[in-house]
Amino acid sequence: MVQLTEKVRMLFDGKNFAVLSTLEPDGKPHSTVMWVKRDKDDILFALPKSRRKIANLNRDPRAAVVIFDAASPYESVQVQGIASIEDDPGGMLVDELSHKYTGGPYPGFANPGPNPQWVIVRITADKVATSWANS
Amino acid sequence: MVQLTEKVRMLFDGKNFAVLSTLEPDGKPHSTVMWVKRDKDDILFALPKSRRKIANLNRDPRAAVVIFDAASPYESVQVQGIASIEDDPGGMLVDELSHKYTGGPYPGFANPGPNPQWVIVRITADKVATSWANS
Repeated sequence: MVQLTEKVRMLFDGKNFAVLSTLEPDGKPHSTVMWVKRDKDDILFALPKSRRKIANLNRDPRAAVVIFDAASPYESVQVQGIASIEDDPGGMLVDELSHKYTGGPYPGFANPGPNPQWVIVRITADKVATSWANS
Repeated sequence: MVQLTEKVRMLFDGKNFAVLSTLEPDGKPHSTVMWVKRDKDDILFALPKSRRKIANLNRDPRAAVVIFDAASPYESVQVQGIASIEDDPGGMLVDELSHKYTGGPYPGFANPGPNPQWVIVRITADKVATSWANS
Protein backbone atom coordinates (compact mmCIF):
# COMPACT_ATOMS: atom_id res chain seq x y z
CA MET A 1 0.00 0.00 0.00
CA VAL A 2 1.25 3.41 -1.01
CA GLN A 3 0.62 6.78 0.62
CA LEU A 4 -0.49 9.65 -1.59
CA THR A 5 1.55 12.84 -1.43
CA GLU A 6 -0.12 16.15 -0.57
CA LYS A 7 0.09 17.19 -4.23
CA VAL A 8 -1.61 14.00 -5.42
CA ARG A 9 -4.27 14.36 -2.73
CA MET A 10 -5.01 17.90 -3.93
CA LEU A 11 -5.53 16.66 -7.50
CA PHE A 12 -8.08 14.09 -6.32
CA ASP A 13 -9.73 16.52 -3.90
CA GLY A 14 -10.23 19.14 -6.63
CA LYS A 15 -13.00 19.09 -9.23
CA ASN A 16 -10.76 17.25 -11.65
CA PHE A 17 -12.00 14.40 -13.82
CA ALA A 18 -10.19 11.07 -13.68
CA VAL A 19 -9.72 8.41 -16.33
CA LEU A 20 -10.28 4.90 -14.98
CA SER A 21 -8.75 2.03 -16.95
CA THR A 22 -9.82 -1.57 -16.48
CA LEU A 23 -9.18 -4.78 -18.39
CA GLU A 24 -11.66 -6.25 -20.88
CA PRO A 25 -12.38 -10.02 -20.94
CA ASP A 26 -9.68 -10.48 -23.61
CA GLY A 27 -7.20 -8.41 -21.57
CA LYS A 28 -7.21 -5.21 -23.60
CA PRO A 29 -7.53 -1.84 -21.84
CA HIS A 30 -10.86 -0.02 -21.40
CA SER A 31 -10.79 3.61 -20.24
CA THR A 32 -13.46 6.14 -19.34
CA VAL A 33 -13.78 9.57 -17.75
CA MET A 34 -15.19 9.61 -14.22
CA TRP A 35 -16.02 11.67 -11.18
CA VAL A 36 -13.68 10.72 -8.37
CA LYS A 37 -12.92 11.30 -4.71
CA ARG A 38 -10.26 10.30 -2.27
CA ASP A 39 -10.76 8.47 1.03
CA LYS A 40 -7.45 8.70 2.89
CA ASP A 41 -5.11 6.97 0.40
CA ASP A 42 -7.83 5.14 -1.55
CA ILE A 43 -9.44 6.39 -4.76
CA LEU A 44 -13.24 6.03 -4.99
CA PHE A 45 -15.64 5.92 -7.93
CA ALA A 46 -19.44 5.48 -7.97
CA LEU A 47 -20.96 3.22 -10.63
CA PRO A 48 -24.12 1.24 -11.31
CA LYS A 49 -23.37 -2.45 -10.81
CA SER A 50 -24.43 -3.20 -14.40
CA ARG A 51 -21.55 -1.29 -15.97
CA ARG A 52 -18.91 -3.01 -18.06
CA LYS A 53 -16.19 -1.55 -15.81
CA ILE A 54 -17.68 -3.41 -12.83
CA ALA A 55 -17.73 -6.72 -14.70
CA ASN A 56 -14.15 -6.03 -15.75
CA LEU A 57 -13.01 -5.29 -12.18
CA ASN A 58 -14.84 -8.30 -10.76
CA ARG A 59 -12.94 -10.48 -13.23
CA ASP A 60 -9.58 -8.73 -12.84
CA PRO A 61 -9.25 -6.03 -10.16
CA ARG A 62 -6.13 -4.42 -11.61
CA ALA A 63 -6.81 -0.80 -12.55
CA ALA A 64 -5.06 2.42 -13.52
CA VAL A 65 -6.30 5.92 -12.74
CA VAL A 66 -5.02 9.10 -14.34
CA ILE A 67 -5.87 12.56 -13.13
CA PHE A 68 -4.76 16.04 -14.08
CA ASP A 69 -5.89 19.60 -13.49
CA ALA A 70 -7.38 20.84 -16.77
CA ALA A 71 -5.84 24.25 -16.02
CA SER A 72 -2.40 22.67 -15.74
CA PRO A 73 -2.46 19.46 -17.77
CA TYR A 74 1.29 19.06 -18.16
CA GLU A 75 1.62 17.55 -14.74
CA SER A 76 -0.47 14.47 -14.16
CA VAL A 77 -0.64 11.52 -11.84
CA GLN A 78 -1.09 7.83 -12.52
CA VAL A 79 -2.23 5.50 -9.77
CA GLN A 80 -2.01 1.79 -10.43
CA GLY A 81 -3.78 -0.39 -7.93
CA ILE A 82 -6.29 -3.04 -7.02
CA ALA A 83 -10.03 -2.44 -6.93
CA SER A 84 -12.52 -3.75 -4.42
CA ILE A 85 -16.25 -3.27 -4.90
CA GLU A 86 -18.70 -2.33 -2.14
CA ASP A 87 -22.48 -2.10 -2.33
CA ASP A 88 -23.96 1.39 -1.98
CA PRO A 89 -27.71 0.74 -2.17
CA GLY A 90 -28.69 4.35 -1.55
CA GLY A 91 -26.22 5.75 -4.06
CA MET A 92 -24.66 7.84 -1.28
CA LEU A 93 -21.34 8.18 -3.10
CA VAL A 94 -22.74 9.22 -6.48
CA ASP A 95 -24.80 11.85 -4.68
CA GLU A 96 -21.74 13.08 -2.79
CA LEU A 97 -19.78 13.23 -6.07
CA SER A 98 -22.64 15.11 -7.72
CA HIS A 99 -22.49 17.71 -4.97
CA LYS A 100 -18.72 17.92 -5.37
CA TYR A 101 -18.78 18.39 -9.15
CA THR A 102 -22.11 20.09 -9.85
CA GLY A 103 -23.04 21.63 -6.51
CA GLY A 104 -26.35 19.75 -6.42
CA PRO A 105 -27.88 16.31 -5.85
CA TYR A 106 -27.39 13.56 -8.43
CA PRO A 107 -29.96 14.31 -11.14
CA GLY A 108 -30.30 10.64 -12.13
CA PHE A 109 -32.23 10.00 -8.92
CA ALA A 110 -35.12 12.03 -10.36
CA ASN A 111 -35.37 9.80 -13.43
CA PRO A 112 -37.86 6.96 -13.46
CA GLY A 113 -36.48 3.50 -14.15
CA PRO A 114 -35.06 0.53 -12.30
CA ASN A 115 -32.83 1.02 -9.27
CA PRO A 116 -29.33 1.06 -10.74
CA GLN A 117 -27.82 -0.82 -7.78
CA TRP A 118 -24.98 1.58 -7.09
CA VAL A 119 -21.60 0.31 -6.04
CA ILE A 120 -18.40 1.96 -4.84
CA VAL A 121 -15.15 1.08 -6.57
CA ARG A 122 -12.32 1.49 -4.07
CA ILE A 123 -8.83 1.46 -5.53
CA THR A 124 -5.92 0.84 -3.20
CA ALA A 125 -2.76 2.18 -4.80
CA ASP A 126 0.29 0.04 -5.20
CA LYS A 127 2.14 2.52 -7.44
CA VAL A 128 1.82 6.28 -7.88
CA ALA A 129 3.73 8.11 -10.60
CA THR A 130 3.82 11.77 -11.52
CA SER A 131 4.59 12.48 -15.14
CA TRP A 132 4.67 15.19 -17.75
CA ALA A 133 2.58 15.23 -20.91
CA ASN A 134 4.43 13.82 -23.85
CA SER A 135 7.17 12.21 -21.81
CA MET B 1 -11.13 -0.36 -39.16
CA VAL B 2 -13.54 2.27 -37.89
CA GLN B 3 -14.20 5.76 -39.23
CA LEU B 4 -14.16 8.63 -36.76
CA THR B 5 -17.22 10.88 -36.69
CA GLU B 6 -16.88 14.62 -37.23
CA LYS B 7 -17.39 15.20 -33.50
CA VAL B 8 -14.63 12.76 -32.55
CA ARG B 9 -12.33 14.29 -35.16
CA MET B 10 -12.91 17.72 -33.64
CA LEU B 11 -11.91 16.46 -30.19
CA PHE B 12 -8.62 15.09 -31.54
CA ASP B 13 -8.01 18.15 -33.72
CA GLY B 14 -8.44 20.53 -30.77
CA LYS B 15 -5.79 21.26 -28.14
CA ASN B 16 -7.18 18.54 -25.91
CA PHE B 17 -4.96 16.17 -23.99
CA ALA B 18 -5.45 12.43 -24.43
CA VAL B 19 -4.88 9.57 -22.02
CA LEU B 20 -3.12 6.62 -23.66
CA SER B 21 -3.48 3.24 -21.97
CA THR B 22 -1.19 0.32 -22.72
CA LEU B 23 -0.59 -3.06 -21.10
CA GLU B 24 2.29 -3.74 -18.71
CA PRO B 25 4.33 -6.97 -18.95
CA ASP B 26 2.02 -8.61 -16.39
CA GLY B 27 -1.08 -7.40 -18.28
CA LYS B 28 -2.19 -4.60 -15.98
CA PRO B 29 -3.14 -1.22 -17.45
CA HIS B 30 -0.70 1.71 -17.67
CA SER B 31 -2.09 5.17 -18.52
CA THR B 32 -0.52 8.56 -19.16
CA VAL B 33 -1.49 12.00 -20.45
CA MET B 34 -0.25 12.83 -23.94
CA TRP B 35 -0.27 15.31 -26.78
CA VAL B 36 -2.16 13.82 -29.70
CA LYS B 37 -3.12 14.40 -33.30
CA ARG B 38 -5.28 12.71 -35.88
CA ASP B 39 -4.20 11.47 -39.30
CA LYS B 40 -7.42 10.65 -41.18
CA ASP B 41 -8.93 7.99 -38.90
CA ASP B 42 -5.70 7.11 -37.06
CA ILE B 43 -4.59 8.56 -33.73
CA LEU B 44 -0.92 9.59 -33.47
CA PHE B 45 1.41 10.10 -30.51
CA ALA B 46 5.11 11.06 -30.44
CA LEU B 47 7.40 9.29 -27.98
CA PRO B 48 11.05 8.54 -27.40
CA LYS B 49 11.68 4.87 -28.23
CA SER B 50 12.99 4.26 -24.71
CA ARG B 51 9.64 4.86 -23.02
CA ARG B 52 7.84 2.12 -21.11
CA LYS B 53 4.76 2.70 -23.28
CA ILE B 54 6.74 1.76 -26.38
CA ALA B 55 8.03 -1.46 -24.81
CA ASN B 56 4.45 -2.20 -23.75
CA LEU B 57 3.06 -1.61 -27.26
CA ASN B 58 5.84 -3.62 -28.91
CA ARG B 59 4.90 -6.54 -26.66
CA ASP B 60 1.11 -6.10 -26.96
CA PRO B 61 -0.19 -3.49 -29.41
CA ARG B 62 -3.67 -3.24 -27.88
CA ALA B 63 -4.32 0.29 -26.62
CA ALA B 64 -7.11 2.56 -25.42
CA VAL B 65 -7.22 6.32 -25.88
CA VAL B 66 -9.54 8.66 -24.03
CA ILE B 67 -10.02 12.31 -24.94
CA PHE B 68 -12.29 15.05 -23.70
CA ASP B 69 -12.55 18.81 -23.97
CA ALA B 70 -11.55 20.22 -20.58
CA ALA B 71 -14.23 22.90 -21.05
CA SER B 72 -16.87 20.21 -21.52
CA PRO B 73 -15.62 17.08 -19.75
CA TYR B 74 -18.95 15.32 -19.46
CA GLU B 75 -18.76 14.10 -23.01
CA SER B 76 -15.72 12.03 -23.81
CA VAL B 77 -14.54 9.55 -26.38
CA GLN B 78 -12.77 6.24 -26.00
CA VAL B 79 -10.92 4.72 -28.94
CA GLN B 80 -9.77 1.13 -28.59
CA GLY B 81 -7.37 -0.03 -31.25
CA ILE B 82 -4.09 -1.52 -32.33
CA ALA B 83 -0.83 0.40 -32.30
CA SER B 84 1.93 0.29 -34.87
CA ILE B 85 5.24 2.04 -34.31
CA GLU B 86 7.13 4.02 -36.94
CA ASP B 87 10.59 5.60 -36.65
CA ASP B 88 10.69 9.39 -36.71
CA PRO B 89 14.44 10.13 -36.53
CA GLY B 90 14.00 13.90 -36.81
CA GLY B 91 11.26 14.08 -34.22
CA MET B 92 8.99 15.69 -36.83
CA LEU B 93 5.83 14.66 -35.03
CA VAL B 94 6.82 15.85 -31.57
CA ASP B 95 7.76 19.19 -33.12
CA GLU B 96 4.42 19.39 -34.94
CA LEU B 97 2.60 18.55 -31.70
CA SER B 98 4.61 21.17 -29.83
CA HIS B 99 3.49 23.78 -32.36
CA LYS B 100 -0.11 22.57 -32.00
CA TYR B 101 -0.14 22.72 -28.19
CA THR B 102 2.35 25.44 -27.31
CA GLY B 103 2.61 27.50 -30.49
CA GLY B 104 6.38 26.93 -30.68
CA PRO B 105 9.03 24.34 -31.51
CA TYR B 106 9.61 21.39 -29.19
CA PRO B 107 11.77 22.78 -26.37
CA GLY B 108 13.42 19.41 -25.71
CA PHE B 109 15.42 19.80 -28.95
CA ALA B 110 17.40 22.60 -27.29
CA ASN B 111 18.51 20.35 -24.44
CA PRO B 112 21.85 18.62 -24.63
CA GLY B 113 21.85 14.84 -24.26
CA PRO B 114 21.54 11.73 -26.38
CA ASN B 115 19.20 11.66 -29.35
CA PRO B 116 15.98 10.27 -27.90
CA GLN B 117 15.19 8.24 -31.06
CA TRP B 118 11.68 9.51 -31.57
CA VAL B 119 8.95 7.19 -32.78
CA ILE B 120 5.36 7.68 -33.88
CA VAL B 121 2.68 5.55 -32.28
CA ARG B 122 -0.16 5.13 -34.79
CA ILE B 123 -3.38 3.70 -33.39
CA THR B 124 -5.91 2.28 -35.81
CA ALA B 125 -9.30 2.25 -34.15
CA ASP B 126 -11.37 -0.87 -33.99
CA LYS B 127 -13.95 0.57 -31.58
CA VAL B 128 -15.00 4.13 -30.82
CA ALA B 129 -17.40 4.91 -27.99
CA THR B 130 -18.79 8.20 -26.76
CA SER B 131 -19.69 8.26 -23.09
CA TRP B 132 -20.71 10.55 -20.28
CA ALA B 133 -18.75 11.08 -17.08
CA ASN B 134 -19.92 8.83 -14.31
CA SER B 135 -21.87 6.51 -16.57
